[in-house]
Amino acid sequence: TPESAERTAVPGVATGLAVTGAGGDVLFIEATSMEGEPGLTLTGQLGDVMKESAHIALSYLRSNGRRLGIDPNALAGRRIHVHFPAGAVPKDGPSAGITMVTALASLVTGRPVRPEFGMTGEVTLSGRVLPIGGVKQKLLAAHRAGLTEVIIPKRNEPDLDDLPAEVREALTVHTLADVADVLALALRPAEVDAQSLGGQPLAAA
Amino acid sequence: TPESAERTAVPGVATGLAVTGAGGDVLFIEATSMEGEPGLTLTGQLGDVMKESAHIALSYLRSNGRRLGIDPNALAGRRIHVHFPAGAVPKDGPSAGITMVTALASLVTGRPVRPEFGMTGEVTLSGRVLPIGGVKQKLLAAHRAGLTEVIIPKRNEPDLDDLPAEVREALTVHTLADVADVLALALRPAEVDAQSLGGQPLAAA
Amino acid sequence: TPESAERTAVPGVATGLAVTGAGGDVLFIEATSMEGEPGLTLTGQLGDVMKESAHIALSYLRSNGRRLGIDPNALAGRRIHVHFPAGAVPKDGPSAGITMVTALASLVTGRPVRPEFGMTGEVTLSGRVLPIGGVKQKLLAAHRAGLTEVIIPKRNEPDLDDLPAEVREALTVHTLADVADVLALALRPAEVDAQSLGGQPLAAA
Amino acid sequence: TPESAERTAVPGVATGLAVTGAGGDVLFIEATSMEGEPGLTLTGQLGDVMKESAHIALSYLRSNGRRLGIDPNALAGRRIHVHFPAGAVPKDGPSAGITMVTALASLVTGRPVRPEFGMTGEVTLSGRVLPIGGVKQKLLAAHRAGLTEVIIPKRNEPDLDDLPAEVREALTVHTLADVADVLALALRPAEVDAQSLGGQPLAAA
Amino acid sequence: TPESAERTAVPGVATGLAVTGAGGDVLFIEATSMEGEPGLTLTGQLGDVMKESAHIALSYLRSNGRRLGIDPNALAGRRIHVHFPAGAVPKDGPSAGITMVTALASLVTGRPVRPEFGMTGEVTLSGRVLPIGGVKQKLLAAHRAGLTEVIIPKRNEPDLDDLPAEVREALTVHTLADVADVLALALRPAEVDAQSLGGQPLAAA
Amino acid sequence: TPESAERTAVPGVATGLAVTGAGGDVLFIEATSMEGEPGLTLTGQLGDVMKESAHIALSYLRSNGRRLGIDPNALAGRRIHVHFPAGAVPKDGPSAGITMVTALASLVTGRPVRPEFGMTGEVTLSGRVLPIGGVKQKLLAAHRAGLTEVIIPKRNEPDLDDLPAEVREALTVHTLADVADVLALALRPAEVDAQSLGGQPLAAA
Ligand SMILES: [Ca+2]
Ligand SMILES: [Ca+2]
Ligand SMILES: [Ca+2]
Ligand SMILES: [Ca+2]
Ligand SMILES: [Ca+2]
Ligand SMILES: [Ca+2]
Ligand SMILES: [Ca+2]
Ligand SMILES: [Ca+2]
Ligand SMILES: [Ca+2]
Ligand SMILES: [Ca+2]
Ligand SMILES: [Ca+2]
Ligand SMILES: [Ca+2]
Repeated sequence: TPESAERTAVPGVATGLAVTGAGGDVLFIEATSMEGEPGLTLTGQLGDVMKESAHIALSYLRSNGRRLGIDPNALAGRRIHVHFPAGAVPKDGPSAGITMVTALASLVTGRPVRPEFGMTGEVTLSGRVLPIGGVKQKLLAAHRAGLTEVIIPKRNEPDLDDLPAEVREALTVHTLADVADVLALALRPAEVDAQSLGGQPLAAA
Repeated sequence: TPESAERTAVPGVATGLAVTGAGGDVLFIEATSMEGEPGLTLTGQLGDVMKESAHIALSYLRSNGRRLGIDPNALAGRRIHVHFPAGAVPKDGPSAGITMVTALASLVTGRPVRPEFGMTGEVTLSGRVLPIGGVKQKLLAAHRAGLTEVIIPKRNEPDLDDLPAEVREALTVHTLADVADVLALALRPAEVDAQSLGGQPLAAA
Repeated sequence: TPESAERTAVPGVATGLAVTGAGGDVLFIEATSMEGEPGLTLTGQLGDVMKESAHIALSYLRSNGRRLGIDPNALAGRRIHVHFPAGAVPKDGPSAGITMVTALASLVTGRPVRPEFGMTGEVTLSGRVLPIGGVKQKLLAAHRAGLTEVIIPKRNEPDLDDLPAEVREALTVHTLADVADVLALALRPAEVDAQSLGGQPLAAA
Repeated sequence: TPESAERTAVPGVATGLAVTGAGGDVLFIEATSMEGEPGLTLTGQLGDVMKESAHIALSYLRSNGRRLGIDPNALAGRRIHVHFPAGAVPKDGPSAGITMVTALASLVTGRPVRPEFGMTGEVTLSGRVLPIGGVKQKLLAAHRAGLTEVIIPKRNEPDLDDLPAEVREALTVHTLADVADVLALALRPAEVDAQSLGGQPLAAA
Repeated sequence: TPESAERTAVPGVATGLAVTGAGGDVLFIEATSMEGEPGLTLTGQLGDVMKESAHIALSYLRSNGRRLGIDPNALAGRRIHVHFPAGAVPKDGPSAGITMVTALASLVTGRPVRPEFGMTGEVTLSGRVLPIGGVKQKLLAAHRAGLTEVIIPKRNEPDLDDLPAEVREALTVHTLADVADVLALALRPAEVDAQSLGGQPLAAA
Repeated sequence: TPESAERTAVPGVATGLAVTGAGGDVLFIEATSMEGEPGLTLTGQLGDVMKESAHIALSYLRSNGRRLGIDPNALAGRRIHVHFPAGAVPKDGPSAGITMVTALASLVTGRPVRPEFGMTGEVTLSGRVLPIGGVKQKLLAAHRAGLTEVIIPKRNEPDLDDLPAEVREALTVHTLADVADVLALALRPAEVDAQSLGGQPLAAA
């Protein structure tokens, strides 16, 4: 979509799927890093569970970085800031776990997230993808927003039955159990020509 | 206006637009820096959302400084203090985001903010300008205070219809989507002769 | 069981037994470590007593490590993160004490926890195993989950009378009073061939 | 007055004007500094707004010290303690801002505050003096306490109409808009002979 | 007693006497130390007064160590952890003061606490032993648990009248006013043969 | 008195006068110092005002030490612990200010406090002694406890009229306005022979 293409053109932004009072919604999680006291700054009026989820995402990458081809020092020695727009809307829950892992991995590898992907799933410290709620509403929102590929937890596979046939057909749904597979699928190669991805004119970062 | 000219004569002060119980109002956000333990001091009885907004503004500049021609060390190694007068009035919300980015960028570049500008808009960590509320009241207040140029989020453009024609004509309204464009527009060149800006006699800093 | 085999294939994961509103349950406690400011990060919506329990587990290993053949520096100079999935479920109480000691000892020795073991018991700072509640429900849950060996506190031995005969027969129950004995029993030897443990195909870490 | 002469004989003490339940009152704000971890210790049962006010006063001096002839290192590398007697009376509000700037400037320059001066006014981070309440009660209290010179914010000038004629005549009232002017007026020269100020016998510090 | 012998076999464990809802009880206070950031970790759901009591015990030993033959560096440069089992039972009050001093002194000298001793008493920063409540219930509990020597504050001596004659005879009660005397009495000599103390088979630490 | 003689035999202990639910009382404030992270540990269930009072006492001595003949480094580079027995009784208010200054000055000079002195008075950051309440009850308590010299604030002099004639005669009351005078009066000379002070047999520290 134009918006997700624009937002994910910069490494460090991943497209999440959320449930709000008004149904499902698409959410752009932004991560950046800077020199300064190492640690994690979290903004966007996050609740306790979501804050813990961010720490799990960061610890997963710091502990498993070497195996994933990520320089652990890129995360350990810098200040990391993760923001969930819009800033005044309270948010909570563990289901943005894999989206935060993806945004952070994108940031430290410099590989942007594929703009056609949305994702949802809790992540554990060893990288397991645990099931979440609201699959139907989240996938309807992804479809409305023009996304064409979504990632959900493997254990949420049965929830796909509840989706209208036309949405089910329009979306390519990936059901995964390990967040390493999420990263393999959702990050663009480092050296790709941005213009060639779906023909969308991407702004330079 | 005389007041905004006087207040923004010093680098680090930007003119925001706010909604209070008594309609819209003009607000001078002050930023300064000093040697000491790096970090952010926030005063003016700010609520949680506004405090987070200040951290987002600072992280945006620290992460994107090089691209914007700002020395990132000017922000990383110093104590930053941002104050919202008046000190006893509680304030909250994300809509001072772009004003804080502007005040901080003014501070570290030494380029004062143009005195004829007022602005309002939420900012995200990657610099997107998100829509805010109260556009009508804020622009009426800007007009009353003698400001002639205002910056609002691009997605708030439809709200301009609600403005009285005379105010709409008196104000030059810039609708922007990227905070880098806000900085390009609102900061005075570093080497400009202050006296030449609108003929206002500006006090030396 | 397939799940515990998969989860405990990585050093740092131990299988606990808990009581929830819906009876007993099996719980995979994950520990990892990384470079960074030394200390303990705890996630999973843990209550005060459970957080203290984690500090007791870590202090026990740091104080007694040399005696147990564990390098105390492996724990002292690194950031330790312990997570209890699922992230949104509040958890409390001291009964995961020996499971945390086991997960942490597994992490620093690199010896995975035996996949057929589940365990429950409070631990004190000098390594005593104190009795806990819910033995019957916890052992029924262990049995349902396909575990075949369980560790409980020695002083909970009388509670075994309440177990159905078929469960009592299916499970090998170890009643222990010293957490050093728990470690001796539940950690796989460092050099074992993973495939040979119960014939379960274990994923490589 | 004898009391203010005695209290302000030492650099670091300034005479403020406050409103209490029992009308206006004179208040001696004390500042001192010592080696130790840099930072600000505040005592006297201060409310949030007053604490923020102290941070604004300190940041103003640290940022603008060079311009004011104050050694910024004198403030940055030391522990500063500001106390508002009496210790058990809760106090709040921004109106002691200029008095705190004056007490701190007195402390670091070694120039005592003129004993015949009392003052009240909010200060902003760039040194603007903002209006405060209770001017009438505060000036009556200054007069009762034998003070002869008072400093109030320029924007409070209209409040002087409410003062009884005899008090208005007895007091020299300075209405100022910039705290730098407060310092120029209220601090005694560094090398002055203390005995020559109003003939009061001042104790040596 | 078998339990106190087993628990106090390791240096750093002392036997306290407490009053609970169900009368008096015997309580094993555990102290350990490790490399790491110097400071005090307290666990066991301790209330404010009991936490302060632990800091008093530690400060007493750090300030008076040289006089008591204790290496002050053994306490100053290490992380100290004091735990009161059972972990889920809230505890409060100052009466474990002398027991904490004893546990900490045992830890740093490597001299185990005599297994036949139980003790109760508030301690002050200069080592005075202040009176506590519940002497009768505590001594009954000591007797039930098989302890034969108890230490109570000198000013609690009158409370001994309330004890049944047989308990009074079975117990040797030491009434002391200075915690240095508690240490002289309750710590085993460093080089003693553990097996020789009352014939109890003590487990090796 | 025997008790105050015993308690104040060690440098760092001063005798305060307090008002409790049961009338006036004598209170032994204990101060000690040790190597470790510089700062102030306060115990004895102190309220906010009393805690601030301790920080004022410490800052006064650190800022004015040189003038008072006290080595400022003795206070700046060490951990200070001030305790108010009994540990479980909540205490608050500013009236122990001069007693804390005295206890701390005694500690760092090694000069014990004269055992026949009790004292009460608020202290400010520049050493002024401010009036307090409960003079009558406090002096009755001092008399009951066998003290013969008391220090009260100069501004409390009128309260002495309320004292029974026999108590007024038995006590030598010093009314002071500067805490430096308190120290000059209440601290024993460094090299005095302890036995010679009022003939009381003082225990060696
Ligand atoms: Ca919560
Ligand atoms: Ca279904
Ligand atoms: Ca809030
Ligand atoms: Ca409209
Ligand atoms: Ca709790
Ligand atoms: Ca049974
Ligand atoms: Ca407040
Ligand atoms: Ca008027
Ligand atoms: Ca409490
Ligand atoms: Ca009795
Ligand atoms: Ca309070
Ligand atoms: Ca009287």
